[in-house]
Amino acid sequence: MTPSVPQGFKLSGTHCGIKRNPGKPDLSIIMSDRPATAVGVFTQNLVHAAPVALDRQRTPTDRFRVLVINSGNANACTGDRGLADARQMATLAAAACGVEASHALVMSTGVIGEFLPLEKIEAGIRAASKQLGNSEESLVLGARGMLTTDTVHKLSGRTILVDGRSVQITGMAKGAAMIGPRMATMLSVIMTDAALEPATAKTLLTSIADETFNCISVDGHMSTNDTVLLLANGAAGTAPLTGESLATFGQALLEVCTELAKAIPNDGEGCTHLVTIDILGCADKAAARRIAKTVAESPLVKTAIAGADPNWGRIVSAAGYSGVAFDPGKVDLDVNGVRLYQQGSPLAFDKPAVAESIRSQRDTHVRLMFGEGEATARFWTTDLTPEYVRLNADYTT
Amino acid sequence: MTPSVPQGFKLSGTHCGIKRNPGKPDLSIIMSDRPATAVGVFTQNLVHAAPVALDRQRTPTDRFRVLVINSGNANACTGDRGLADARQMATLAAAACGVEASHALVMSTGVIGEFLPLEKIEAGIRAASKQLGNSEESLVLGARGMLTTDTVHKLSGRTILVDGRSVQITGMAKGAAMIGPRMATMLSVIMTDAALEPATAKTLLTSIADETFNCISVDGHMSTNDTVLLLANGAAGTAPLTGESLATFGQALLEVCTELAKAIPNDGEGCTHLVTIDILGCADKAAARRIAKTVAESPLVKTAIAGADPNWGRIVSAAGYSGVAFDPGKVDLDVNGVRLYQQGSPLAFDKPAVAESIRSQRDTHVRLMFGEGEATARFWTTDLTPEYVRLNADYTT
Repeated sequence: MTPSVPQGFKLSGTHCGIKRNPGKPDLSIIMSDRPATAVGVFTQNLVHAAPVALDRQRTPTDRFRVLVINSGNANACTGDRGLADARQMATLAAAACGVEASHALVMSTGVIGEFLPLEKIEAGIRAASKQLGNSEESLVLGARGMLTTDTVHKLSGRTILVDGRSVQITGMAKGAAMIGPRMATMLSVIMTDAALEPATAKTLLTSIADETFNCISVDGHMSTNDTVLLLANGAAGTAPLTGESLATFGQALLEVCTELAKAIPNDGEGCTHLVTIDILGCADKAAARRIAKTVAESPLVKTAIAGADPNWGRIVSAAGYSGVAFDPGKVDLDVNGVRLYQQGSPLAFDKPAVAESIRSQRDTHVRLMFGEGEATARFWTTDLTPEYVRLNADYTT
Repeated sequence: MTPSVPQGFKLSGTHCGIKRNPGKPDLSIIMSDRPATAVGVFTQNLVHAAPVALDRQRTPTDRFRVLVINSGNANACTGDRGLADARQMATLAAAACGVEASHALVMSTGVIGEFLPLEKIEAGIRAASKQLGNSEESLVLGARGMLTTDTVHKLSGRTILVDGRSVQITGMAKGAAMIGPRMATMLSVIMTDAALEPATAKTLLTSIADETFNCISVDGHMSTNDTVLLLANGAAGTAPLTGESLATFGQALLEVCTELAKAIPNDGEGCTHLVTIDILGCADKAAARRIAKTVAESPLVKTAIAGADPNWGRIVSAAGYSGVAFDPGKVDLDVNGVRLYQQGSPLAFDKPAVAESIRSQRDTHVRLMFGEGEATARFWTTDLTPEYVRLNADYTT
């Protein structure tokens, strides 16, 4: 079910010719009818795109009015001209929507290293600014305008009661490859009509991104453009959230971010399995995450799951090179609920049955348990298929 | 050209039924007719195989006599029984060759997590010990007995003059996947009839492995069994090498190890390109290596090369998430000798011509230059093809 648009927000999505296929929107606008809090988490890649640099300068803010997003071109590795182009794109969107230029933010995604086609973008902004709406159709078009190789748009929402007011949280995301977690690793925008102070919003988004968008992987390649923005315009009439209200809101936001984050590897290029990796019994959270990430990114683990092969040696050996110290003699491993390895030694198990349980379901569950402590981590990753390779062997040319 | 066997060494390779195909040798023996220096470098994977544990205990030594190697079974993740099996395998080889049990070393490679078929191995050791020889055929059979998914055996040799004596260095290696550099990442044995003190040999091998076997990648998955052994029996009649003689020997050993190391990604599973990555202008060696490794392991870089796609944004953005600090505005990139990116901005270049230069050759050369200092690193990696994925989706089942 498509969630509703939070009060005070309008969206649109249009095709302006950055992508070749005229059926695919490539430019979206999201506007708030009043000044809103906007905070972001961004890629940790040193080589970051121009829109990331611009949004980093302009957030946190409580003056946000408009966000313009294009797909088909990442405006990354484009030097000073790229920065000027991002600023120009923001200025054009602000002008079209009648707001101050400095209250506009920008996101771009697509091919790296080509300059933005500014004439097309200008025409797209003009068209999109005239189609802004808060219908289900507007929301879906806005969500589709940010997609690249995604096969489905990604939306998630929650309606909650806070301080006696009905509050809506609605988020969208894009991403299907170049997904390697460190901070946020894709594009996502979450709108809410709750009121949030910028500092509170930033703290909340950072901690939630760390448990959701930073715990996914498709190929371990950290993008240049990763951005998650949280936009909160207060149109629901709440006071800025604190205490119990903030906790209620935070729980709903966590659920929305978890759904959006999982939707990305689930739509991973060429993927046939969504793999949930649970790491238990580690000395600390950092250790659990590091093991989860190493297992999630091993091409040998990922190809084994593509082949429905319960090749547990690849999982255990990936943990072994994660750089985390542990006693190999205290490791247990379950795949889809079946114990394959216990206290550092192989168990006899029904291999055809486990293979069939992998083959017959889209979800695979890997549970790796250490005897070192109480810390846990959960990661989501894809399998690795020939189709992923084919898709990526010929993306720009 | 097949190199010759160093004086005082004999080898054999036989099929004993660990692999299904009777045409593929799966057990090799290498014997020295006199006590030899043996030193090793081993996987840094915490989850290391039983033969690695045994060889770590028994080296460095100046009493080495026999090495037995099996393929088709890694004897990894096999707990205490695996350790007992590795020791038993060494004892059987020593008995068959009439030497002391503690002077025997073991290597295993193949599927992780299954117990060694000791009866087959005992029969194989008996057969192989009767076929030991120093002919070209014996050397090739010995080199073939260690192969798994390799499509070719890997040999390299040099004949040099040291202290007025002709000295032979001959090495063999195996590896085509689960290749991720940190120390040695595959199996290799290098024999020489020069004399080397164990401590000297260990220092030399460690520093050379760091520049060769530790600078290769197929999939970034560090194996449980990686081992490089250097065996030096002194049969050429030299005194233990020092000074100028050691330097001459070291240069030849570096050449042999470089050839063997490059042969591994060149035979990488499903690979259609051998990619040489040169990193220049870094602040220090560690930084240069870290960038090289990150670029070498990016699935997006590897699929682009498979598709003959000069998608330089993937190369630059991989460097950006390596964790090394650098100024993106001072980065230059050449692919196959053509400048694609200069001082942080894209250059106009003849894309079809660069694509054709990638497509038409097996070797691809990536040269990434930073403006941070004088340190350099060279890595060798493969492209990533659908065939790699197919091979690894169905390896144990």
